[in-house]
This record gives sequence, C-alpha cells and structure tokens, in this order.
Amino acid sequence: MSTGVRRRMGVDERRQQLIGVALELFSRRSPDEVSIDEIASAAGISRPLVYHYFPGKLSLYEAALKRAAEDLAGRFAEPHEGPLGARLLRVMRRYFDFVDEHGPGFSALMRGGPAVSADGVGAKDHVSATNALIDSVRQAAYEQMLTHLGVTEASPRLELVVRSWISLAESTALLWLDGRRIPRAELELQLVHDFAALAAVGATHDPDIAALLRGMAKDEPADGPFAELVGRLIALGS
Amino acid sequence: MSTGVRRRMGVDERRQQLIGVALELFSRRSPDEVSIDEIASAAGISRPLVYHYFPGKLSLYEAALKRAAEDLAGRFAEPHEGPLGARLLRVMRRYFDFVDEHGPGFSALMRGGPAVSADGVGAKDHVSATNALIDSVRQAAYEQMLTHLGVTEASPRLELVVRSWISLAESTALLWLDGRRIPRAELELQLVHDFAALAAVGATHDPDIAALLRGMAKDEPADGPFAELVGRLIALGS
Repeated sequence: MSTGVRRRMGVDERRQQLIGVALELFSRRSPDEVSIDEIASAAGISRPLVYHYFPGKLSLYEAALKRAAEDLAGRFAEPHEGPLGARLLRVMRRYFDFVDEHGPGFSALMRGGPAVSADGVGAKDHVSATNALIDSVRQAAYEQMLTHLGVTEASPRLELVVRSWISLAESTALLWLDGRRIPRAELELQLVHDFAALAAVGATHDPDIAALLRGMAKDEPADGPFAELVGRLIALGS
Repeated sequence: MSTGVRRRMGVDERRQQLIGVALELFSRRSPDEVSIDEIASAAGISRPLVYHYFPGKLSLYEAALKRAAEDLAGRFAEPHEGPLGARLLRVMRRYFDFVDEHGPGFSALMRGGPAVSADGVGAKDHVSATNALIDSVRQAAYEQMLTHLGVTEASPRLELVVRSWISLAESTALLWLDGRRIPRAELELQLVHDFAALAAVGATHDPDIAALLRGMAKDEPADGPFAELVGRLIALGS
C-alpha cells in the first residue's frame, strides 16, 4: 500500500545517496562550482541535514572521491585470458568510460593537483587525503599491469615504463576532455599502441623488457592491436 | 678599508638572497620540512626580518617557485640549428640538471600536486598560483617544441603527442628522483627515444605527423639519437 510519504533513509543509505548526488553534479560541473545548497536540493533534503551526514563540503567531496576511486580501480580488473593487446584495449575502453562519466570532476581533481582547492584549517589534511587516494588508484593500475605482464618483481626500467605509461594515460584523458577533439575510441587504441612503443624503447635498454616483449608478441593474433601497430608502422615506412 | 661590519642589503637584494637560500634548502629537503627559522639562520638574519621581506612562508615559497620556473623555462631555449634529435637530447640534459639540482623541492611540488600544502586562509589562492606557474612552464616547453618542429599551428593529435610527452618527461624525472636507480644519462636518451616512439604512433593515426616525421628523419645523421633508436629496434627484432 503506497502512502505517498517518503520513506526515511538510514544513515548509511542517506550518505550513499548524497555521495551519488554529488558525483552526478561533479560529472557536469567542477566540484569548486557545486554548492552544498545544490547538493541538498538535488537530494531533496535541507542544507543543515546534509551537514548532519557530512560535516562539510570537503568531507563529502572526499567520500565521493573515495567511491569514484574504488569504481575506477574496479574497472582495471580484467581476466587473464587471451592476448595482452586486446586485454589492454578493453581496460582502456572502461577507463575512458569512467573519464567520460566523471568529466569535470576528473579534470578538476587531476588538474588542480589535489582536488577541490580548500581554504581554512584542514586544507592540508585534505590535500594529503586526496593525494593518497590518487596514488592508490595509480598503484592499483600498476599492480594490475604487472600481473597481466606475468611479472612479480619489476626491474627499475620496467617499473618506469609501466608507471610512466599510466601517467601518459592520465594526461591523454585530460587532454581529451579539453574539447574532445579526437574520437575517444582512437585514443583508447593509441594508448595501447603507446604502451607497445614505450615498451619497445624500454626493451632496447633492458634485456628483461626485451624478453617480455618477445613473449607478448608471440601470443598476439594478426588482428590484435599490437599487430595493427606494426602493420601501420610498416605502411608508414613504405 | 674593511670595517668588518656587514654591508646593508637593499630590499630587492635581500629578497633575492632569501629566495636563493630557500631554494638551496628546498634542494636538500622538502619545503614542508624547512622552517622560516632555518631560512633566517641560513641567511644570517633574524626570523622577524624574514617576515619583513616576505609576509609568510607561502609568499617566500611562491617567490622561490617563480624563480625556479623562470630558470627551468630558460633551459628549454635551444638554438634552431642541427638535427632535432641532438637538440632534444641537449634540452633533456639541461632538464635533468634542473631536476637534479632541485630534487626534493621538485618532487614535493609535482607530487603534492600544487606545492607546499598549506593550511589557513590563502591556501586556495596559493594552490591556484602554484598551478598557474606549473602550467606556464609546461606551456613554455610545448611552445619551444613546436618551434623546433617548425609548426605554428598543431593538429589536435600533434598537440596531444607533444603535451603528453612533456608529461611523460615529468613523470620519468619524478620516478628517477625516487631512488635514482637508473643513470640519468640513460633516461635523457630514453626520453628522446620515447618522443620518437610516441610521434611514430601518432604518425600512424595522423598524416600531418607522418609528414613531419619524414622531414625530421631526412635531417637526422647516422650517429644521432633517432638513428640510434632505429638501430636498436632493428637489433631487437633480429
């Protein structure tokens, strides 16, 4: 029997709702431009009630960032099956899905350095907390990559190749968001090609990476993204 | 006639001295760990006198960052003569000189997102000011690269290649500082190779980049870094 009266939410449920509302608003405008009033209004509750669940905008922002970070880290999970090029391409697609869904929030976070710029006491802790979250996502991406490469202990140069490629994926996504002048599907493929290119350069400096690359190449099908790059490079040279 | 009495410095001279002292301290420890007392002591003046020239640590930090940014941007200047590979390699050497000289200060700035983490009113302006400075250095690097490539208007994809390579140079330098496990000279060369590799990938997606790359290759000597990469890649495949 419907009463027409809104059901009362539990504390955790209400917090999750507010986080979802905040993320939805941050996906359309920079967190700096979204007020607690707007969040309250979009959630259908009063401003003081928002403060009941989150002591301030920073704590709501941090909770939203935490959920987004977990979401993103989850998208890196990819079965260890089939050729590596195709796996990487699927992960890049899910990465761009995330970037697409969180556009302005993602930009503000990664460009502003850490997060919503904060004034007042607590700003410093906030900077540390958001940096730690960003680093944890980068670390999750790094560890995922190593497991897909079948490596438990990376040489310094392999670590450099993987970590610097992750930062390349970040900067590519940020540049894409700034005007979206290149179709994202092309950039997803390009990032897979960039990984192969950076790994090839690394391989010319490090025999371990060379061995890894040979193993990867062996399993790549003729229609995979790595073989496609080789075909494109050969066409370029001819 | 020496009087044994310290000469009084003018306001600007004293400010420049304090900036130099601060940069020297930040080159050995993170700015977060350096106190105004230490800066005063290293400069041979009292703590209140430091505050006479800079209202707070943030303003001294910002002035130091401004000088370092100008210094770095100056190191990008390279005569438009000779093959591009050798030019890029010289710039990478000067870039790593800078990173080497400013180690902990550079790390703290680029890792902490923007700069010394600040608490209190003004923190937000500080974040904006340091971000603007970092962006101005990136922009200077980008514009220098375009002039060396002989391009006045970059296609979206060329812009992406150049800007994402600049971010790769940043992350490579940061990873190098964290333990210095790879000789810097190897990384300077690797970054030149990385540029060639990323440009080659870009060229397979964009005919303008392909034309640019052909023009570059034409002028490269057999003992230049680009030719060396090609030789290394061929050796890898054989």
